[in-house]
Amino acid sequence: MATLATDQRVYNFSAGPAVLPVSVLEQVRDEMLCLPGAGCSLLEMSHRDKRFLEILADAQAGIRELLGVSDDYEVLFLQGGARLQFSMIAANLLRGQDKAAEYMLTGSWSKKAIEEARKEGNVNVTWDGKANQYSQLPTAADYQIPADAPYLYYCSNETIQGVQFQSEPTCPGSVPLICDSSSDFLSRPLDIAKYGMLYACAQKNAGPAGVTVVIMRKDLLAKGSDDLPGYLLYRNHAENDSEWNTPPTFAIYVLGLVTQWLKKQGGLQAIEKQNHEKSQLLYDVIDAFPDFYQGHAKVDCRSKMNVTFKLPSDELQAAFLAEAASQQLQSLKGHRSVGGIRASLYNAMPVAGAAKLADLMRAFAEKNA
Amino acid sequence: MATLATDQRVYNFSAGPAVLPVSVLEQVRDEMLCLPGAGCSLLEMSHRDKRFLEILADAQAGIRELLGVSDDYEVLFLQGGARLQFSMIAANLLRGQDKAAEYMLTGSWSKKAIEEARKEGNVNVTWDGKANQYSQLPTAADYQIPADAPYLYYCSNETIQGVQFQSEPTCPGSVPLICDSSSDFLSRPLDIAKYGMLYACAQKNAGPAGVTVVIMRKDLLAKGSDDLPGYLLYRNHAENDSEWNTPPTFAIYVLGLVTQWLKKQGGLQAIEKQNHEKSQLLYDVIDAFPDFYQGHAKVDCRSKMNVTFKLPSDELQAAFLAEAASQQLQSLKGHRSVGGIRASLYNAMPVAGAAKLADLMRAFAEKNA
Ligand SMILES: Cc1ncc(COP(=O)(O)O)c(C=O)c1O
Ligand SMILES: Cc1ncc(COP(=O)(O)O)c(C=O)c1O
Ligand SMILES: [Mg+2]
Ligand SMILES: [Mg+2]
Ligand SMILES: [Mg+2]
Ligand SMILES: [Mg+2]
Repeated sequence: MATLATDQRVYNFSAGPAVLPVSVLEQVRDEMLCLPGAGCSLLEMSHRDKRFLEILADAQAGIRELLGVSDDYEVLFLQGGARLQFSMIAANLLRGQDKAAEYMLTGSWSKKAIEEARKEGNVNVTWDGKANQYSQLPTAADYQIPADAPYLYYCSNETIQGVQFQSEPTCPGSVPLICDSSSDFLSRPLDIAKYGMLYACAQKNAGPAGVTVVIMRKDLLAKGSDDLPGYLLYRNHAENDSEWNTPPTFAIYVLGLVTQWLKKQGGLQAIEKQNHEKSQLLYDVIDAFPDFYQGHAKVDCRSKMNVTFKLPSDELQAAFLAEAASQQLQSLKGHRSVGGIRASLYNAMPVAGAAKLADLMRAFAEKNA
Repeated sequence: MATLATDQRVYNFSAGPAVLPVSVLEQVRDEMLCLPGAGCSLLEMSHRDKRFLEILADAQAGIRELLGVSDDYEVLFLQGGARLQFSMIAANLLRGQDKAAEYMLTGSWSKKAIEEARKEGNVNVTWDGKANQYSQLPTAADYQIPADAPYLYYCSNETIQGVQFQSEPTCPGSVPLICDSSSDFLSRPLDIAKYGMLYACAQKNAGPAGVTVVIMRKDLLAKGSDDLPGYLLYRNHAENDSEWNTPPTFAIYVLGLVTQWLKKQGGLQAIEKQNHEKSQLLYDVIDAFPDFYQGHAKVDCRSKMNVTFKLPSDELQAAFLAEAASQQLQSLKGHRSVGGIRASLYNAMPVAGAAKLADLMRAFAEKNA
């Protein structure tokens, strides 16, 4: 990354940790030495302080309001990232069961989730996207879920491949649906009542690294065994309102500010519209130059969050990245496991950022195709 | 907590999260919108970005330099707090062993560590301070450690009771010594070569909540089973230099700044001297009014980090806390499990803060004794 003048912000297409709203960063900056009225920085404040408990409650309320989460669900803030959830889900809900949990294998993140689940019990891979390099997702006709499965697990947006479920998989009412929504959390409205559990690490669409949001139906909290390592038992966190031990206070504070920002943007319907618009700007160029930009995802599985494509050669790809960097378009390199280009367009990416990248793509293709 | 003017910082005696150096907070504030030359906030930067990798390496190097950590040890940055370590230690080093791990039961935190260890294997309580309400610590004559114990575990500073080991317990060379140093980490020089593992959540003496530092001798990394939940296997974190998954980037960044600040203070010898001075200011008042201020810890086990005492009545205690608050001395209430007063005097608490509290204590005793 080239060195820039101190205060020059660029368009940052990182897949996570990722772009945050400038107004949120400004508030964090302004309150860094002293949270108004608190006598100290949020960073210095006990997690048992009334003031922090309000911040935690506000962050929970923000999520509840944006997604319409009912009292049938807990909203928890955990550490360990989404990958610790891969283990916690299976340790709480699969360990000791003889039925197999159902997992949709749709890309790199669901693959890793399956690896962890296999340590805890039986896994049935409901559907496997390997034959098409994880460029497409199953439709209801492709699978059937036994009514007594412990749960059905899927990843709503595979961040690395750039494929996104446009709606929830079909799942019997008796089977809890569990979703890794790490990279499209709060990007669109959802009907939470369809889920047993939905979770997301915050560092893509909802805040900084260091906190993972877990939305879990309360009946599922009874399932884990008391023999589990204490941190891994969801019940402990629910019974102590995310203060079973010291929570990641700063990450929760920033996440709360992001939910406030989202409400000011008009909530999830408004942000979904904008996310559609931004991603369409890029997909339109890909479709206009289909031989030059090889989009990875099948059209009906395209992610609105992570737009993934390849150029005809490694040389052209390197030239494209260099040209982008010179125009202050940053962190566009695809994940090291798959290569190519990945433009992540989370909520806080302005339309102008996507438009500038679309312009570059068009100009670059016209010059080099 | 009373509401104060926006920018008025008070003396904050919180036990954790706790006071941080003002110069560190200022740098965090100044870099919040844009890390110099990076084009974005640290909060927005990929953990794979070269720039962040430097920050991570600098934070590790800062710890290595301050404590003299050799290459025989890994320095890891983990999530989940110290309480997840309670489980990870036992899951990696005790599970599957038939010998009992040795645990010193010296207060609330070692007690919770023992509860987690018992889920994984046999525990022998080497010594139990219950008879004296955890006001004192064992001497070498009080215990003997079998040469084939999987490890000896102790908590160097019991944050709630305010008792602190003045030096390491006696431990056979064949037995890895494991220390929860959460509340006195980086407060004094240590001979790390004596330890198999030493760890600390950062939110007391080393940074904000959200990161836990683990210093582990490399031979111990081989012990955990691959069947463990991936996040719980130390080896995974070591082999991926704390990037097995997304680390808590912001907490690591602040922790790195704290290590730089410590070096500027003259390192751990200088800070130890100051910590001695600060705590002595309070213990001198306690000793001057022994009937009025009932110090919890036996004199030779007194903590330089958390000074714990009681006043003759609940009414006097409440009056004392109110008087302290009116003098901008904040967060002095003891832990809810034991009551009383607790003044935490971590590295970043200025001598002036301790002096002001000592003055208040003296005046309050003179008026009310
Ligand atoms: C969809 C998805 N799941 C899981 C993860 C892993 O999250 P973490 O690194 O916080 O464990 C990521 C990204 O890192 C992701 O994009
Ligand atoms: C000595 C000690 N150990 C463990 C803990 C638990 O740390 P955490 O809340 O990060 O799990 C604390 C304080 O919270 C502590 O003071
Ligand atoms: Mg990531
Ligand atoms: Mg609750
Ligand atoms: Mg704490
Ligand atoms: Mg290493």
